[in-house]
Amino acid sequence: MQKIKVGISQGDINGVGYEVILKTFASEEMLSLCTPVIFGSPKVAVYYRKSVENAPNFNVVDRPEKARDGQLNIVDCLGDTEVKIEPGTPTPEAGSAAFKALEAAVSALDNQLIDVLVTAPINKNTIQNDKFHFPGHTEYIEQKAGGGQRALMILMNESLRVALVTTHVPVSKIAQKITKQNIEAKLNILDDTLKRDFAIDNPRIAVLSLNPHCGDNGVIGNEEQDVIIPAIQDSFKKGIRCFGPYAADGFFGSGNYARFDAILAMYHDQGLAPFKALAMDDGVNYTAGLPVIRTSPAHGTAYDIAGKGVADENSFRQAVYTAIDIFRNRSRYEEAYAHPLKKQYYEKRDDSDKLKLDQVTEDDQI
Amino acid sequence: MQKIKVGISQGDINGVGYEVILKTFASEEMLSLCTPVIFGSPKVAVYYRKSVENAPNFNVVDRPEKARDGQLNIVDCLGDTEVKIEPGTPTPEAGSAAFKALEAAVSALDNQLIDVLVTAPINKNTIQNDKFHFPGHTEYIEQKAGGGQRALMILMNESLRVALVTTHVPVSKIAQKITKQNIEAKLNILDDTLKRDFAIDNPRIAVLSLNPHCGDNGVIGNEEQDVIIPAIQDSFKKGIRCFGPYAADGFFGSGNYARFDAILAMYHDQGLAPFKALAMDDGVNYTAGLPVIRTSPAHGTAYDIAGKGVADENSFRQAVYTAIDIFRNRSRYEEAYAHPLKKQYYEKRDDSDKLKLDQVTEDDQI
Repeated sequence: MQKIKVGISQGDINGVGYEVILKTFASEEMLSLCTPVIFGSPKVAVYYRKSVENAPNFNVVDRPEKARDGQLNIVDCLGDTEVKIEPGTPTPEAGSAAFKALEAAVSALDNQLIDVLVTAPINKNTIQNDKFHFPGHTEYIEQKAGGGQRALMILMNESLRVALVTTHVPVSKIAQKITKQNIEAKLNILDDTLKRDFAIDNPRIAVLSLNPHCGDNGVIGNEEQDVIIPAIQDSFKKGIRCFGPYAADGFFGSGNYARFDAILAMYHDQGLAPFKALAMDDGVNYTAGLPVIRTSPAHGTAYDIAGKGVADENSFRQAVYTAIDIFRNRSRYEEAYAHPLKKQYYEKRDDSDKLKLDQVTEDDQI
Repeated sequence: MQKIKVGISQGDINGVGYEVILKTFASEEMLSLCTPVIFGSPKVAVYYRKSVENAPNFNVVDRPEKARDGQLNIVDCLGDTEVKIEPGTPTPEAGSAAFKALEAAVSALDNQLIDVLVTAPINKNTIQNDKFHFPGHTEYIEQKAGGGQRALMILMNESLRVALVTTHVPVSKIAQKITKQNIEAKLNILDDTLKRDFAIDNPRIAVLSLNPHCGDNGVIGNEEQDVIIPAIQDSFKKGIRCFGPYAADGFFGSGNYARFDAILAMYHDQGLAPFKALAMDDGVNYTAGLPVIRTSPAHGTAYDIAGKGVADENSFRQAVYTAIDIFRNRSRYEEAYAHPLKKQYYEKRDDSDKLKLDQVTEDDQI
C-alpha cells in the first residue's frame, strides 16, 4: 500500500501553525503512516523548531513531486522573500506568506500531487489580497479545486459530526435563508459524504429546528411547519434517513446526538457553540462535498499563545488522521462502485445494458 | 438557625416530578438541612413511592403553616378530586392538578409561609387554563409574586451561569429585540443577583456577540458595533464589570467561560445549547430579579421514562441546594446593608443625612 501524501499549508506564520505541525510529526509513527508535505518556508519552520521537543529534520524541496517517504518534506513557497516572524501579531507579511503557501498547496491538491490537504489556521483579515477575496479556506478551495461542486463544512470529532445549513450569515438574515431547497441540498451532500467518506452504509441524520422549542406549534415561529418538516419528509421519501426537527438545547443536553451519524444545524452558533463546548481539543473541520479532500483543526491562529510552546497539537493530529481515513474510505467506495454488475434483467421496451437500480424508488417497490 | 422552609410544587403528575422529589428526600441529610413542604396530592405521592427506595413517610397537612421540621410535609391541594395517574401521558387532569399545586405554592411563597420554591416540571400545554396563560413558570411567578419586578432566567451549575437577553422569540425576530436598553437592563439584574444572591462582591460578566465571529467588523452584521459594544461600554462606566462581546463558539470551545461569574447570551439556543451540552445532569434554572426565590431542575417532565424509577434526581437536588444557598446569601446581604453608616461627610450645598456614595461615578473620582 502506497503511503498517502498529506499536504499541509503553513497558515499564519505568527500563529500556532508550525508548532502544532511539528509537534504532530515529532512522533515517528506519523512518518510511517503518511508522507507529509508542508507548503511553507524552511526558515520559519526552523524558527519554530526550537519550541518543539524531538522535532524531525526537514527535507527541503522545490516541488511537491520531490517529496520523499519517511521524511518531513517542506516545499519552499517563499524563496528569497525576507519574512519577519512576530508571534502573536497579525501582519500583512504573514498574510502574504500564508496565501502563497495556500495557493501552492491547493494547486498541488487540484493536480493530485498530494492526496489530501490539511490547512493550518490563517488570519482571515491579513490574507486578503487581489487573488483572495473569501471568508475563509472553505470558499477558496471550493472555487479553486471544487470542480463546480458546493462545499459543506462539517465539524467533527470521534463522537459528533455537525453540518450547517447557513454559515456566515447575520442573525437578522438567517430565517430568510432557511428554505426547503437549501435544507434538501445540504441533506443530500451530508448523506452522500457519510456514505462515501465515512463508510456508513445507512446513515441517520438529525435535523435541528430553527426556533426555540421547535417553534412550540407555531407560537415561536412557523419555519418548522412551513419549511423544515416538509424538507425532512421529502428527503426521507428520497431515501435519506433524516429525522427531526429537534430543539437544539434539549438535543445536546439529552445526549441524543449519540444516536445519529450527523447533525444538520440551521445556523452557525446553534451548531458550533455546543459542538465546541463538547469537542474542546479534538475538533476537526472537514470540507465535504468536493472532489478534493481538505481538513483543518477546529481552532484558529491562537495568537495569545503563539510562540510559547504550549499549544495542544491534538486537534491538528486528528485533522491529519481524518483526512487519511476519508481518503481511504473514498478510494474503497469508488473501487466498490467502479464496476457495477452487468445488467441481470431487462425491463419491457429496454434492452440497454445499463443496470437501472438507480431508478427503483420506494413507490415502485410497492 | 431556623430551618429553611423549602416549598415544592408537584408539577405534572404523569412526569418524573414525584420520583425526583422523593429520591431527593430519601436521604436523611436533606431533612436535617431544610423543611420540605410539597404542594400536591398525598395519593399521587404514595403511588410514586413504590419506585423509590427508602422514601420517607409523609406528614399530610391542610395548610403550609402546619409543616413540621424533620418530616416530608405534603399540603393536600387536590382534596377529594379523583386523579387518574397515567405516567408518560399528557392529560388535562394532570394539567389541572399541576396548576392547583402551583397556585397554592406561589401564594404561600408570596405570603412568606415558605422561604423558597422549587418547582417540579409541568407540561406547558396541559396546564393552560383561564387563570394560567403563560409560556411557563417564570412568567406566572413574575406576575403573581414578582412585586412588579422583571424576572431574568439564569441556567446554572457549579461552574457556569448563563442568562439570556431574549428568550422565547422566533429567530427571525431576535435581531430587532437586541436593543441597547434591553441589554443594559439584563446586565443590571444579572450584576445585582450575582452580588445579592451569589455573594460575589465584584462579579465579572461575559457578553456574547449576536452574530457569528462577532460580526467580523461589520461583514456579518452590525449589531455588535451599533448596539452591543455601546451597551457594554455604558454599563461598564456605571460600574458593572462586563466584557465582550465574545463569539459564542470560540467562547465555549476555549473554556473561557471559567473566567467569568456569568455569561449573558443574546438568545435561547446560543446560550442554552452549549449550556445543556456541558451541564448534562446537574443544571438548575433560577428565576432571578424577583423578591421571591424560585429554582427548578433544568429538565422537563421526561415522559419517556416517567414511572420507571430510572430518573436521575441530581438536577432536582441541586435546585434545592441552590434555592437554600440563595436564601442564605440574600439574608446575609440584606442584613449587611440594612444599617448603612451614618453620613460621614457633607458636600457643598447639601446638608441632608443621605450618604451619597451612590452618586460617585468613575468620572468623579478622576
